[in-house]
Amino acid sequence: MPFPDLVHPAIDAYESAVQTPADFVQFWASTIAEARALGGEVSMVPAQTTLKLVEVFDVTFPGFGGHPIKGWLMLPRERSRKLPLVVQYVGYGGGRGFAHEGLHWAVSGFAYFRMDTRGQGSGWSTGATPDPVGSTGQIPGVMTKGILDRNDYYYRRLFTDGVRAVDTLIDLDFVDAERVAVCGGSQGGGISLAVAGIDDRVKAVMPDVPFLCDFPRAIRVAGRDPYLEIVRFLAQHREKAQTVFETLRYFDGVCFARRSKAAALFSVAMMDDVCPPSTVYAAFKAFAGTEKTIVEYEFNNHEGGGPFQDRQQMEWLSRRFL
Amino acid sequence: MPFPDLVHPAIDAYESAVQTPADFVQFWASTIAEARALGGEVSMVPAQTTLKLVEVFDVTFPGFGGHPIKGWLMLPRERSRKLPLVVQYVGYGGGRGFAHEGLHWAVSGFAYFRMDTRGQGSGWSTGATPDPVGSTGQIPGVMTKGILDRNDYYYRRLFTDGVRAVDTLIDLDFVDAERVAVCGGSQGGGISLAVAGIDDRVKAVMPDVPFLCDFPRAIRVAGRDPYLEIVRFLAQHREKAQTVFETLRYFDGVCFARRSKAAALFSVAMMDDVCPPSTVYAAFKAFAGTEKTIVEYEFNNHEGGGPFQDRQQMEWLSRRFL
Amino acid sequence: MPFPDLVHPAIDAYESAVQTPADFVQFWASTIAEARALGGEVSMVPAQTTLKLVEVFDVTFPGFGGHPIKGWLMLPRERSRKLPLVVQYVGYGGGRGFAHEGLHWAVSGFAYFRMDTRGQGSGWSTGATPDPVGSTGQIPGVMTKGILDRNDYYYRRLFTDGVRAVDTLIDLDFVDAERVAVCGGSQGGGISLAVAGIDDRVKAVMPDVPFLCDFPRAIRVAGRDPYLEIVRFLAQHREKAQTVFETLRYFDGVCFARRSKAAALFSVAMMDDVCPPSTVYAAFKAFAGTEKTIVEYEFNNHEGGGPFQDRQQMEWLSRRFL
Amino acid sequence: MPFPDLVHPAIDAYESAVQTPADFVQFWASTIAEARALGGEVSMVPAQTTLKLVEVFDVTFPGFGGHPIKGWLMLPRERSRKLPLVVQYVGYGGGRGFAHEGLHWAVSGFAYFRMDTRGQGSGWSTGATPDPVGSTGQIPGVMTKGILDRNDYYYRRLFTDGVRAVDTLIDLDFVDAERVAVCGGSQGGGISLAVAGIDDRVKAVMPDVPFLCDFPRAIRVAGRDPYLEIVRFLAQHREKAQTVFETLRYFDGVCFARRSKAAALFSVAMMDDVCPPSTVYAAFKAFAGTEKTIVEYEFNNHEGGGPFQDRQQMEWLSRRFL
Amino acid sequence: MPFPDLVHPAIDAYESAVQTPADFVQFWASTIAEARALGGEVSMVPAQTTLKLVEVFDVTFPGFGGHPIKGWLMLPRERSRKLPLVVQYVGYGGGRGFAHEGLHWAVSGFAYFRMDTRGQGSGWSTGATPDPVGSTGQIPGVMTKGILDRNDYYYRRLFTDGVRAVDTLIDLDFVDAERVAVCGGSQGGGISLAVAGIDDRVKAVMPDVPFLCDFPRAIRVAGRDPYLEIVRFLAQHREKAQTVFETLRYFDGVCFARRSKAAALFSVAMMDDVCPPSTVYAAFKAFAGTEKTIVEYEFNNHEGGGPFQDRQQMEWLSRRFL
Amino acid sequence: MPFPDLVHPAIDAYESAVQTPADFVQFWASTIAEARALGGEVSMVPAQTTLKLVEVFDVTFPGFGGHPIKGWLMLPRERSRKLPLVVQYVGYGGGRGFAHEGLHWAVSGFAYFRMDTRGQGSGWSTGATPDPVGSTGQIPGVMTKGILDRNDYYYRRLFTDGVRAVDTLIDLDFVDAERVAVCGGSQGGGISLAVAGIDDRVKAVMPDVPFLCDFPRAIRVAGRDPYLEIVRFLAQHREKAQTVFETLRYFDGVCFARRSKAAALFSVAMMDDVCPPSTVYAAFKAFAGTEKTIVEYEFNNHEGGGPFQDRQQMEWLSRRFL
Repeated sequence: MPFPDLVHPAIDAYESAVQTPADFVQFWASTIAEARALGGEVSMVPAQTTLKLVEVFDVTFPGFGGHPIKGWLMLPRERSRKLPLVVQYVGYGGGRGFAHEGLHWAVSGFAYFRMDTRGQGSGWSTGATPDPVGSTGQIPGVMTKGILDRNDYYYRRLFTDGVRAVDTLIDLDFVDAERVAVCGGSQGGGISLAVAGIDDRVKAVMPDVPFLCDFPRAIRVAGRDPYLEIVRFLAQHREKAQTVFETLRYFDGVCFARRSKAAALFSVAMMDDVCPPSTVYAAFKAFAGTEKTIVEYEFNNHEGGGPFQDRQQMEWLSRRFL
Repeated sequence: MPFPDLVHPAIDAYESAVQTPADFVQFWASTIAEARALGGEVSMVPAQTTLKLVEVFDVTFPGFGGHPIKGWLMLPRERSRKLPLVVQYVGYGGGRGFAHEGLHWAVSGFAYFRMDTRGQGSGWSTGATPDPVGSTGQIPGVMTKGILDRNDYYYRRLFTDGVRAVDTLIDLDFVDAERVAVCGGSQGGGISLAVAGIDDRVKAVMPDVPFLCDFPRAIRVAGRDPYLEIVRFLAQHREKAQTVFETLRYFDGVCFARRSKAAALFSVAMMDDVCPPSTVYAAFKAFAGTEKTIVEYEFNNHEGGGPFQDRQQMEWLSRRFL
Repeated sequence: MPFPDLVHPAIDAYESAVQTPADFVQFWASTIAEARALGGEVSMVPAQTTLKLVEVFDVTFPGFGGHPIKGWLMLPRERSRKLPLVVQYVGYGGGRGFAHEGLHWAVSGFAYFRMDTRGQGSGWSTGATPDPVGSTGQIPGVMTKGILDRNDYYYRRLFTDGVRAVDTLIDLDFVDAERVAVCGGSQGGGISLAVAGIDDRVKAVMPDVPFLCDFPRAIRVAGRDPYLEIVRFLAQHREKAQTVFETLRYFDGVCFARRSKAAALFSVAMMDDVCPPSTVYAAFKAFAGTEKTIVEYEFNNHEGGGPFQDRQQMEWLSRRFL
Repeated sequence: MPFPDLVHPAIDAYESAVQTPADFVQFWASTIAEARALGGEVSMVPAQTTLKLVEVFDVTFPGFGGHPIKGWLMLPRERSRKLPLVVQYVGYGGGRGFAHEGLHWAVSGFAYFRMDTRGQGSGWSTGATPDPVGSTGQIPGVMTKGILDRNDYYYRRLFTDGVRAVDTLIDLDFVDAERVAVCGGSQGGGISLAVAGIDDRVKAVMPDVPFLCDFPRAIRVAGRDPYLEIVRFLAQHREKAQTVFETLRYFDGVCFARRSKAAALFSVAMMDDVCPPSTVYAAFKAFAGTEKTIVEYEFNNHEGGGPFQDRQQMEWLSRRFL
Repeated sequence: MPFPDLVHPAIDAYESAVQTPADFVQFWASTIAEARALGGEVSMVPAQTTLKLVEVFDVTFPGFGGHPIKGWLMLPRERSRKLPLVVQYVGYGGGRGFAHEGLHWAVSGFAYFRMDTRGQGSGWSTGATPDPVGSTGQIPGVMTKGILDRNDYYYRRLFTDGVRAVDTLIDLDFVDAERVAVCGGSQGGGISLAVAGIDDRVKAVMPDVPFLCDFPRAIRVAGRDPYLEIVRFLAQHREKAQTVFETLRYFDGVCFARRSKAAALFSVAMMDDVCPPSTVYAAFKAFAGTEKTIVEYEFNNHEGGGPFQDRQQMEWLSRRFL
Repeated sequence: MPFPDLVHPAIDAYESAVQTPADFVQFWASTIAEARALGGEVSMVPAQTTLKLVEVFDVTFPGFGGHPIKGWLMLPRERSRKLPLVVQYVGYGGGRGFAHEGLHWAVSGFAYFRMDTRGQGSGWSTGATPDPVGSTGQIPGVMTKGILDRNDYYYRRLFTDGVRAVDTLIDLDFVDAERVAVCGGSQGGGISLAVAGIDDRVKAVMPDVPFLCDFPRAIRVAGRDPYLEIVRFLAQHREKAQTVFETLRYFDGVCFARRSKAAALFSVAMMDDVCPPSTVYAAFKAFAGTEKTIVEYEFNNHEGGGPFQDRQQMEWLSRRFL
């Protein structure tokens, strides 16, 4: 059947049962503080491209553990004053790709940064950032990498990278620190929810069919990877379910949403069997920011709104920041 | 097996057996002449977007039969003199999409036009152009639409639209008629080969994993649609093979390649089971233009070089035209 | 799970929410009237076959727009008086095939006509009838051909052909105009419901696992094509859902069923994920004719009752007409 | 790749390496003699159908082991003299079905008998004939049923049934014993080759994409069942290959073809991955009868010529027998 | 969706509607009595293996109809007194394999017998036991072998073999007749339930994700073979459903469970689409023995607990019997 | 087609073109020396199981980098003198599982050690050993983990673990250092080839359908993972092929085979599309040890000889070592 999850009106009644851990705020505060304390170097090297209308910088900044994280920074070549900033995080398996693979934010007049994803960047776009940390036995992919301990879990490092990217960019002289947005699709949406839940300097968040929300339901409803990596892990490590769910509470978009203070533009697709719509709505309902909107695509799977939603985001954020 | 077709060195020895019809030039000359004779209106309406660095026009021009064909024209907003022109044709099933879905040519300083594909534009990007012509019984898709008569074949109309797009743009005052390039991936590559074979005003052609080349081999080697639409047609209309192959000779990229006078940058993927590499090499070998280069991707299927090849194209054409 | 849709008792409570458009009758009355007004020629050419016991005619008649539509007419070679008539419409993708592909009605003593399907006839049996009308951008197949306007929709033409076939045959001197039946499986069932809903001269209708019923539910429940063509169209043309559903109301088997005056023998298969059983039951429940029966096949998918249902039909109609 | 086997010209050079066992003739002679010696009853019960133009009999005759075997006999209701006979055998998994499922031979003026297949008759058409004999451990299906001993092999019983069907029908008073043909598609083609190789009273044989030919190659080239049942058996019973191949020599269509004295009309499909074309050509080349023709379908898989080949058969046999 | 069946709490409320036939006990009593009356020879031949720590015997015993049934008997080489006995039955398609394929029971100090499965033993492990009985027309596999009559049904023979295996072993001088357990996974679990329901000498039963339970629900919920063999049979033999369900009542694990007097250790997997969990719970709830425990694996499909459950079984039975 | 690779006689002529790097010996000598120099603790904890006939130890030993590596050591409980040793490595994705999952070597009288696989152990059997080292961007799985530098490549660590396992066990007082064998299937076969190529104390090696041999051909012929992980990596990192192939030379089973001094029992499966037979034969042909035998399974895919080959191994090694 095309609809893999609840539909209206049943989906309207659903709320996530995930409980925010008592030490959730402290866990993330200390995690970010440790990363900041480690410091590390930032480099911004002008990139050689044919892209005349924009300036491109190959950026390296220190993420979790001070590990060097890459990203592309793009700016309109002609600019007169401080620019609003959009930081984009990338979907599962991909990397920052080439600068020319995502131009619409810079062309719309934003300072735009696309952060690379540590240890991924080989599946559908190239990355250049290692994840130097290993793992206990895992299912191929990153969903179960270090999942037996919240301090070792892969997404602890990746979410921290996301906050550290904002740290790196917000103080640049051409960036207006009052106009900072984060966005991303799927995993990128999950990261953006996390960053907007941790870091109040983020004023707008645009999660597109976000992943990493409401894990206990998500892994029981999703019909395809990557959530199913966790199912396969539990199918083998039959005695580890409690440990796994305990770890995941610290990384759940629902918990981050409950703490966010930004304005939000979500999207959700009702035929999405990668990020089931009930889990996206769960995060949306929990979202505690100043303002929130969700665009629903009834007949789409995980491609969601695609370029329709990009257009929505450009219009929504341009109205707000330009 | 990953390689669906010949590999080196066997592929080096392969040449297409397709014979150019005796009246090939005349067929296309009269086809184009008829379309031009019908005339029709051109409209260029500024589009409302957030894309500050480029100007976007929603263009309608008369294609085959005088039918209205859509496209996006994008220009760097700041420009001082005539611009080189890149016309891009779209892959099978897609349409022109939104303007913001392809910005790299305009951002690189080119006048850029993305032509819509009549009657397609629903598969993976949206289109807005009808094909008002019907067909004898056909396999879903356009590969066998009107295939029993070369005058009725779908691609007669589409290739003509491609030439008429050049007609429309080349005389605009901000376009330099001496620097016109056409490009496209897959079906877009096939159209660009056709246009570059018909119209000598085209100085550069960049077919990326081109489709519609060396039909007799292609339909016997391809492992996936759309070439297999023709196989399924012949599986049902068991007595029509000769008629079908006779029609296809007038639309074969190999025949167009033999007549082209442009410079060319091809790409080919050795694991491509949609557009088998021997058929791409067949067109490349036959290509009679002033200069030709091919980039081979050994480990790719039909995605080919993707953004790597985009970068190659931008560099190759910028060196040539800027 | 084997059952893709509601099962008993839940399915018993389901009724379609499709509303018959206020101008439904007028739309079809004027459509048919226009087609009749255009007139056109009928030809009946004796076909050369080895089939000694039946006479076969290759018929061409004017359908929608006066377009020539083909069909096979088969009659028992020995006949003494007027014969009851069975008109069969063909399933999605097929055509009239060869005369010898369906003999059981003529062998049972009926005048039997198998109408070709315009523009199809290449998927699983051959056809010989073009659809000379084009379309706005569409998904391969006919489900979204012209779907943005009820006047352009493909099925307006095909249903009209179905009525015009009855027009053509009913007055032949060997046909008894008081004993006319229509039938067909899947798409053929949908056409037969439409014809029986438009044309009261039809006294019996035998829709077998009918397609084209209760569209809003069908496209949300079907697991396979062709209903999913519409889903894919809406997945791309995300803003067109309302337009599409408005068009479909004029072609919904439920609306035709509400107006029929014939006797009916339906069939339905509970594991059918092409034509979900709730949509078939929706048409059956809505059927307003003189008498109705439905045969349910619990463990069948879209093959339905197959030869079991053929036998049911032969017995049911022989009792009624012979 | 669409072509799963050799194509021209390589296929032209291929000949089967199967060696006819020295006691092949004797094995079959004694097998048939034993079956005849067991005798058994024949019954012919008129069947109740709506099929006015033909008479239908539900026949039971004694096959291998005297086991009762079913079949439908159909005759033109009006007949003045002896009729030529066509015996059809059914494809893998099917049974005789209903009488009305195959009418074209009777409608063309032949006495027509469709033999049921013992123990099958549940896959795509219904049968009514048990196979009362069990088996050593086997793969689901009949391909390895009793395969470890030629006397126990399932096809020994089925081929014998095929000959015994001819025994049963040839002496009926409305049958002309000088005009007997056998035919069938796939497994039915394999049975018809066997019967025509054993029984010289058969004057014409029409094997359509025949199965059960050139086993050693077939099981190494076929891409789908049922040949692959044998591959799976050997994958498990890794030490039994020699035994299995020794058994299969006694049932190979190539060996039967070498002994036939009939005229033959074969068909072959070049994309057939169920009955690879080289194995069909192997039987055709080996065919030793009075005359032979083969119709090749280049773009078909195992559906072969379908109704095109039916038409060929009707024309070929009508010219010969009527 | 990962869960193919009911989940908690809905599954807790489910109970099978299968009614035990009035003559169920008598049917099995007379079936077993007949088999015992036929007698037959038992042989126990020492097998040549490298397995120094255990003694292996190649056993043949008379099963249903006196047919010879094989099995491996393994004993710790060093033993001082009578041993508890574990009889294991094998899953669908497999056979007894090699002795070394299952050593953990003998290594744990049990007399261990792995019974071969008549007529199977080719799918995933080898067997050596024929099923000499044939069948009416059937779907490949054994699920519909003889299904039209309870006396002919395949599982009547196989379950009887299971009881006869206990008969054979229980009186051997190194076996303690008071400590007899049966076990098996999937089909093996179904057989063990049947044997424990028929034969009160069995003191412990360990059905692992058992098959052959609650047929009416199982065939309507299962997503994969072998239950679907029955669905395919009914899809073809559309008129035989009542007959089939009547037969199956005599072979339903739910009915056997209602009569058992043993202690039981079940397992169930919530993502199992071969043996849906509701059908396993149905048998568990119906189980009438002295004591019962079920281990649930939430994230497993039909592999169930695998080696985790083996460990559970070894510990559970060692506590009980050693 | 069932055969995914060359068959006889073509496969007999094939030899790998992989060149052993000039510093291959030195690379591995220094790698092993570094690991040994790091030292680390060995622990052997008796495990609680029901397995009375064998003693089980939960072993931890220092592998590459001194990282703790787990394994199960099993010994016949009754033993009088030093035992020959068999070390088994595990296939891709799995781990050491439970002790009871592999008993046949200990039951045959060998000291048997099953080494866990760092960072895997979640796919089909459980492991308990982390891989604490991270990676540059990679495809899910370990095939491309660190592949851009031979010092970082995952298999450098895993092969070193394999040698260090031998280091750990060979000096235990119940082990006879003159009778040491290594074995494994698939990845385990690749590891065993590596260990036998590095460490001359290994006297016998039994690689079963070995993986990790003749990489340049393997990744171009394999039809399924895990070799295809490398293809997908190169499909994305289009410019890295040379670097990748340079790394792989240091890990190629062909290069290890050229240096081994052990006796070998290989197996190969001709339908294996995971480890193509030409790549296995390439290693076999290159094998330079004292004696070599290969068992070929013509009709098997990657399951190879399964229990047949286990039996071969037990007999071959028992003859040699017992």
